[in-house]
Amino acid sequence: MIEWRRDFHKHAESGFLEMRTASLVARQLSKLGYSLKIAEEVMKADQRMGMPSPQKLDEHYKWAEQNGADLEWLPNFKNGMTGVVAVLETGKPGSVIAYRFDMDALDIQEEMAEGHFPFDQGFQSVNADKMHACAHDGHTSIGLGFAKTLMNNKEKLTGTIKLIFQPAEEGTRGAKSMVAAGVVDDVDVFIAMHLGTGVPTGEFVAGNSGFLATTKIDVIFKGETSHAGGKPEDGRNALMAASSAVLGLYGIPRHSAGASRVNVGVLNAGSGRNIIPGSAQMKIETRGETSEINDYIRSQAFAVLSGAAAMYGVEVATEVVGEAKSSIPSKELVDMLYDVAQSSPYFTKTIDWSTDSAGSEDATYYMEHVKANGGLATYCVVGSDLAAGHHNERFDFDEKSMLSAVDILYRSALKLNKV
Amino acid sequence: MIEWRRDFHKHAESGFLEMRTASLVARQLSKLGYSLKIAEEVMKADQRMGMPSPQKLDEHYKWAEQNGADLEWLPNFKNGMTGVVAVLETGKPGSVIAYRFDMDALDIQEEMAEGHFPFDQGFQSVNADKMHACAHDGHTSIGLGFAKTLMNNKEKLTGTIKLIFQPAEEGTRGAKSMVAAGVVDDVDVFIAMHLGTGVPTGEFVAGNSGFLATTKIDVIFKGETSHAGGKPEDGRNALMAASSAVLGLYGIPRHSAGASRVNVGVLNAGSGRNIIPGSAQMKIETRGETSEINDYIRSQAFAVLSGAAAMYGVEVATEVVGEAKSSIPSKELVDMLYDVAQSSPYFTKTIDWSTDSAGSEDATYYMEHVKANGGLATYCVVGSDLAAGHHNERFDFDEKSMLSAVDILYRSALKLNKV
Amino acid sequence: MIEWRRDFHKHAESGFLEMRTASLVARQLSKLGYSLKIAEEVMKADQRMGMPSPQKLDEHYKWAEQNGADLEWLPNFKNGMTGVVAVLETGKPGSVIAYRFDMDALDIQEEMAEGHFPFDQGFQSVNADKMHACAHDGHTSIGLGFAKTLMNNKEKLTGTIKLIFQPAEEGTRGAKSMVAAGVVDDVDVFIAMHLGTGVPTGEFVAGNSGFLATTKIDVIFKGETSHAGGKPEDGRNALMAASSAVLGLYGIPRHSAGASRVNVGVLNAGSGRNIIPGSAQMKIETRGETSEINDYIRSQAFAVLSGAAAMYGVEVATEVVGEAKSSIPSKELVDMLYDVAQSSPYFTKTIDWSTDSAGSEDATYYMEHVKANGGLATYCVVGSDLAAGHHNERFDFDEKSMLSAVDILYRSALKLNKV
Amino acid sequence: MIEWRRDFHKHAESGFLEMRTASLVARQLSKLGYSLKIAEEVMKADQRMGMPSPQKLDEHYKWAEQNGADLEWLPNFKNGMTGVVAVLETGKPGSVIAYRFDMDALDIQEEMAEGHFPFDQGFQSVNADKMHACAHDGHTSIGLGFAKTLMNNKEKLTGTIKLIFQPAEEGTRGAKSMVAAGVVDDVDVFIAMHLGTGVPTGEFVAGNSGFLATTKIDVIFKGETSHAGGKPEDGRNALMAASSAVLGLYGIPRHSAGASRVNVGVLNAGSGRNIIPGSAQMKIETRGETSEINDYIRSQAFAVLSGAAAMYGVEVATEVVGEAKSSIPSKELVDMLYDVAQSSPYFTKTIDWSTDSAGSEDATYYMEHVKANGGLATYCVVGSDLAAGHHNERFDFDEKSMLSAVDILYRSALKLNKV
Repeated sequence: MIEWRRDFHKHAESGFLEMRTASLVARQLSKLGYSLKIAEEVMKADQRMGMPSPQKLDEHYKWAEQNGADLEWLPNFKNGMTGVVAVLETGKPGSVIAYRFDMDALDIQEEMAEGHFPFDQGFQSVNADKMHACAHDGHTSIGLGFAKTLMNNKEKLTGTIKLIFQPAEEGTRGAKSMVAAGVVDDVDVFIAMHLGTGVPTGEFVAGNSGFLATTKIDVIFKGETSHAGGKPEDGRNALMAASSAVLGLYGIPRHSAGASRVNVGVLNAGSGRNIIPGSAQMKIETRGETSEINDYIRSQAFAVLSGAAAMYGVEVATEVVGEAKSSIPSKELVDMLYDVAQSSPYFTKTIDWSTDSAGSEDATYYMEHVKANGGLATYCVVGSDLAAGHHNERFDFDEKSMLSAVDILYRSALKLNKV
Repeated sequence: MIEWRRDFHKHAESGFLEMRTASLVARQLSKLGYSLKIAEEVMKADQRMGMPSPQKLDEHYKWAEQNGADLEWLPNFKNGMTGVVAVLETGKPGSVIAYRFDMDALDIQEEMAEGHFPFDQGFQSVNADKMHACAHDGHTSIGLGFAKTLMNNKEKLTGTIKLIFQPAEEGTRGAKSMVAAGVVDDVDVFIAMHLGTGVPTGEFVAGNSGFLATTKIDVIFKGETSHAGGKPEDGRNALMAASSAVLGLYGIPRHSAGASRVNVGVLNAGSGRNIIPGSAQMKIETRGETSEINDYIRSQAFAVLSGAAAMYGVEVATEVVGEAKSSIPSKELVDMLYDVAQSSPYFTKTIDWSTDSAGSEDATYYMEHVKANGGLATYCVVGSDLAAGHHNERFDFDEKSMLSAVDILYRSALKLNKV
Repeated sequence: MIEWRRDFHKHAESGFLEMRTASLVARQLSKLGYSLKIAEEVMKADQRMGMPSPQKLDEHYKWAEQNGADLEWLPNFKNGMTGVVAVLETGKPGSVIAYRFDMDALDIQEEMAEGHFPFDQGFQSVNADKMHACAHDGHTSIGLGFAKTLMNNKEKLTGTIKLIFQPAEEGTRGAKSMVAAGVVDDVDVFIAMHLGTGVPTGEFVAGNSGFLATTKIDVIFKGETSHAGGKPEDGRNALMAASSAVLGLYGIPRHSAGASRVNVGVLNAGSGRNIIPGSAQMKIETRGETSEINDYIRSQAFAVLSGAAAMYGVEVATEVVGEAKSSIPSKELVDMLYDVAQSSPYFTKTIDWSTDSAGSEDATYYMEHVKANGGLATYCVVGSDLAAGHHNERFDFDEKSMLSAVDILYRSALKLNKV
Repeated sequence: MIEWRRDFHKHAESGFLEMRTASLVARQLSKLGYSLKIAEEVMKADQRMGMPSPQKLDEHYKWAEQNGADLEWLPNFKNGMTGVVAVLETGKPGSVIAYRFDMDALDIQEEMAEGHFPFDQGFQSVNADKMHACAHDGHTSIGLGFAKTLMNNKEKLTGTIKLIFQPAEEGTRGAKSMVAAGVVDDVDVFIAMHLGTGVPTGEFVAGNSGFLATTKIDVIFKGETSHAGGKPEDGRNALMAASSAVLGLYGIPRHSAGASRVNVGVLNAGSGRNIIPGSAQMKIETRGETSEINDYIRSQAFAVLSGAAAMYGVEVATEVVGEAKSSIPSKELVDMLYDVAQSSPYFTKTIDWSTDSAGSEDATYYMEHVKANGGLATYCVVGSDLAAGHHNERFDFDEKSMLSAVDILYRSALKLNKV
């Protein structure tokens, strides 16, 4: 697992560009004897959010070809259809259990200095501005290690086990397309897992409910330029629309049912000092303690955007480039996992339930879908000591925690496919 | 004329409430032998702007009944249809010439102190918050004096002469309805006249082109109240819409073709400190050096209003409560009037053309209509020394100037009906 | 107590105008044998917030003189110094316990129709737009009934008991001035009590922690009027400042530590359509789940207001007209009160702790002060069936609950002065 | 002159980078026998506006060294002190006459296609994104041609003649520093000249008064970033300040004395979607029909900027990067130039006075300074047929018009040094 992890870390690929990673994952799972579904079989193309440009996809494909991808599997993942699902049918009656592993890196430039473990060990990212700073390299490796353990112990298992290797969790862009393709339609029990998040090595959290629902939106106001001195009346001022929208967005009312957030992180408008700005781009995001609250903020935001455009006679185009729900883990499943963890030698402390705010996660799409179908779902955390916080350029986790993860997952599979 | 003027001044009636005034005007013109058209014959009810409430109309009607109105004519003017047009057909060939006289007072409380001539002479307004502070009492009296002079000299005249007594010039609300009713459809020459406006007694301006086109709009944003602490998300905030609209309105771009203006003169919103404001009312006006510029500002303003409402999920209702055009007097007619004035003993100085900014005037409706039909039109000023500026609570004009006005109008009638 | 209650209800007096009420309270307490401190002795004049105008104070004083006030006590309460504190020294060692009773009515016009109990019984408010719609008439009567019970049982009591009759709780305007005057400096145990608030007759809540800290601010922007058509550059536009402030205020960031609120409930600006608005008034309030959060929102609000004024070259004046803190009841005291209630025959259900959001309350000033000095404090609720919600024009409570209140308060005094 | 012009065109240098141009101008003037003042002698360093970065100055200096600059003169012009003034003392009594020639190119990428004369002839700009698209290459060449003519006819002249070669007219950045250095302190007559501007070859405009006063301002709002989800209260939002400023700037009132303009041409803010924007940059400009109007708009703009920063607790830094005045040519001088032009064989039509709006020009600094000292000043236009409008990437002028320019300037010198 450590070898895999370091290889993935070195060849960090960001959302929908995990072509090399997916090809190696597919080869390994296939070699282990899993039946695989990939690409269009497990992803709805038009439900992906925040896609890289076609040019970017092409460029990266070529890079993957030349940097160690499995050349047989690789062509399947062109165009950013980088999902892989491995299924283990035990042939014995039992539940369908699914585990989710995310594979993508972040758009961060990794620290290139002594004292940063990946650098010291020579497996720092070869891709500029791409870094596994959120442990997804670990998650992918755990998925492969777990796959091997399951296959080695196939005769002890019952029911069906699905291993979901997902692209583009960062920016909450990929899960929706896999759920839409039906990958958890038949699932009775769903488990997502994360390393770290502030929990130290040796501890385990059976259920985390602190995820904010979120929507990420790209906005373009399109007006008409005009010479500001000569013909001010001929312009349609995209910056005025954007400025009015900014004030309107931050002014969206609080919600009495819980926390909400809205942010305009980026605004770029205009071309020259004496030209009335004909276009303005914004990157915004909304969040809510529950999906309902986020939906409320989101719908207010769209009203603000289109109203602001109308005020100044400009057009507005919006694209949802990421989205996640809130989700409360199933109490029954959390309790079971808590018990399972008690029996693992790797954990000295088990926490049944955490409400720590944990940003946003698109694993919630699977969770809500499975729960809506009557199944059970949770999001658990395997503790891992960190060198620096998530999304930090000096992020690194404790590689030993990967073994703990495989252990707890395997124990859960033994127990849960009897549910 | 002085007697009339003082009677009208004492019984000041504001726009569409000139019921007493109109009844006396009608009686006098009728007695002089004019054929009259009144009320629905000379006004389109639905083209009136900025109407008083039905209750206000009823109350004032009762007041007029008890305060010296002509009780035979009065019923015709109920409901604010207070226009009167007198026609003198000479029976001889010649042009149709129309003169406009406005009859309404302002919503101003007259000064009640010594040194103010109407107070000293005991003809101060008996109506609280109503005052002839723009000389329309003089204009109406001049119209009657002119009517008498014409009738006395009927045999010297040719063609047709129309005397238009118009309601609600203040706020530019009445002319449109009279033009819409066709009162100047057959007119070859149109003359509007004003006393004073900064021109001293003894001077005459044959054409004034400095009128700004204008639109006056009442706006109501209607949202939903909600307890600001308990349920902020249930409100639809009319004040936020109004505030956004205010900034948007003042931000309407300048126009390269000439001066423009926009103002939000009044904003009232909300009911209680802890209640999200469910409604907001605004009084706004736009102006433009030309009708085209005003139309541009006006259309931008409507976009701002509806966009701002949409931003905050509220409704917006607008009512145009006044409107006027810009209009350039006909050069030919100005030249003729200039010559006529030279022959009058009342004027020591004649100015052919003034571009002095003179606010807005709805006489421009008649002017543009007559000019569009191939006729000639002007707006002239008969100088009159003033005690204080127009619209001031100590306003008073030099009553002697009324005679000058009748003289120049009569001379114009003699000359112009040959056009 | 019912008689008192109906008399207070009939003669409803709003904040700092409780002159008649205070004079009757003082007379009764004095008659019972309490030593009293009143007016300047128990209130810091300059710490009162949201004072009525001097004229209003004078007018109401005359009304009180003619409507049944005690004419001996009344002069003390002129100028709105309407606080009364009665002290019972038992002469035996023991704690100092204080109880707070608020006396003011709301600015609401009472329902005048059959079916409204006070109307049916003929004790509806004689003062237009003043109504006891929050049960403070009941609180005051309970205070008097409690005072009598204490005095009748003086020999059973130990320590010192203070009864605080406070003006102007509505708008959270009065408590601060009494705390500033030192009325709870020596207090070991503080109890505030409210009837109703959604809790039915027969139930008791020993501690309510759901009060939001709040600040209520009146704002005046003062600019310069100017004719909008003639001299737009001469104006300093108070409405633009206010509009910018509105958008800025609603845009104050959320706080990660808990709920916050901000509202601009009222905005009035401008005088005439064609006049650049020279002044604008706003009524705003901020709230926070904790005092710290409210302080944050409050300080941001002041920055927004002064910045917006500076943007448009206008002056801004602000006045804090009400303020309250958040406060968590003392667990020890809540537990004791819970036990006490168990022993009362009046209560069928006792709740130890409620976090129900309950608006804002200035009793929190006393609570925080007493707790800071090492004492205990709570805010309890005596259930009472309501005819309509608090602050509703048909509000009425179950008069029987007053007896329950006296009982629980008396039992608390018996037990707590041993603390 | 054509040779010079094509050399300058090919080696286009933008504002304060005219190091090569200035070195060649200095060499040529020196060779002709003029006494020269350059760099610090004719420019106040701290009065230059909109300076390139030190790095840019260094880089360009090296480019000039290697691209044909005069290596003896070049070092004087390091650091962007690229002004040159040549003085011809005739030794005979007479006025001091100054002529201004501007030398800088624009930040425009020249058209590189057939049909564009400079491209066809091979003298297109070798510097990317730098192009003489406003005829300053012509102006500089005319200046040199005129210098030669004057020297050749020195004995016919009287008084003193100054030739001012100015950097950075584009963006109105250079003139102020030369006026501040005193270059026109002793000047009796000042003439600036422009080719083209819509006037065809063979026509001459003796005075143009249509320049708008202008101020160009770069603005940086500096706040504090924070994670928008985790700690919204820790941010200080530079984008909200900028957005509020945008709305405030466009809302600066119109001025009744004449046209005004304001524009925010560029706004860039923020770094990431989920980060509260900690900085925002804007490029703005104000304009006024007169310097007074522009000063009004400018001062309002600064109030808006600092107020908006204060609203959101951020800092604002502003830099004036360009400024120009309005200026009315001296009637007496315009009349004289008009007469002079009548005598020139090169002009078939002479216009005495144009009020055509002509953007902004910093020659107005000299004009106002000379006029304030009692001298005469004008801005004249020598007609030249254009291939495309000024500031267009296909701009080109009629090279023959350079001869007309020298002729009229020489004739003016003959006549005017007798003033």
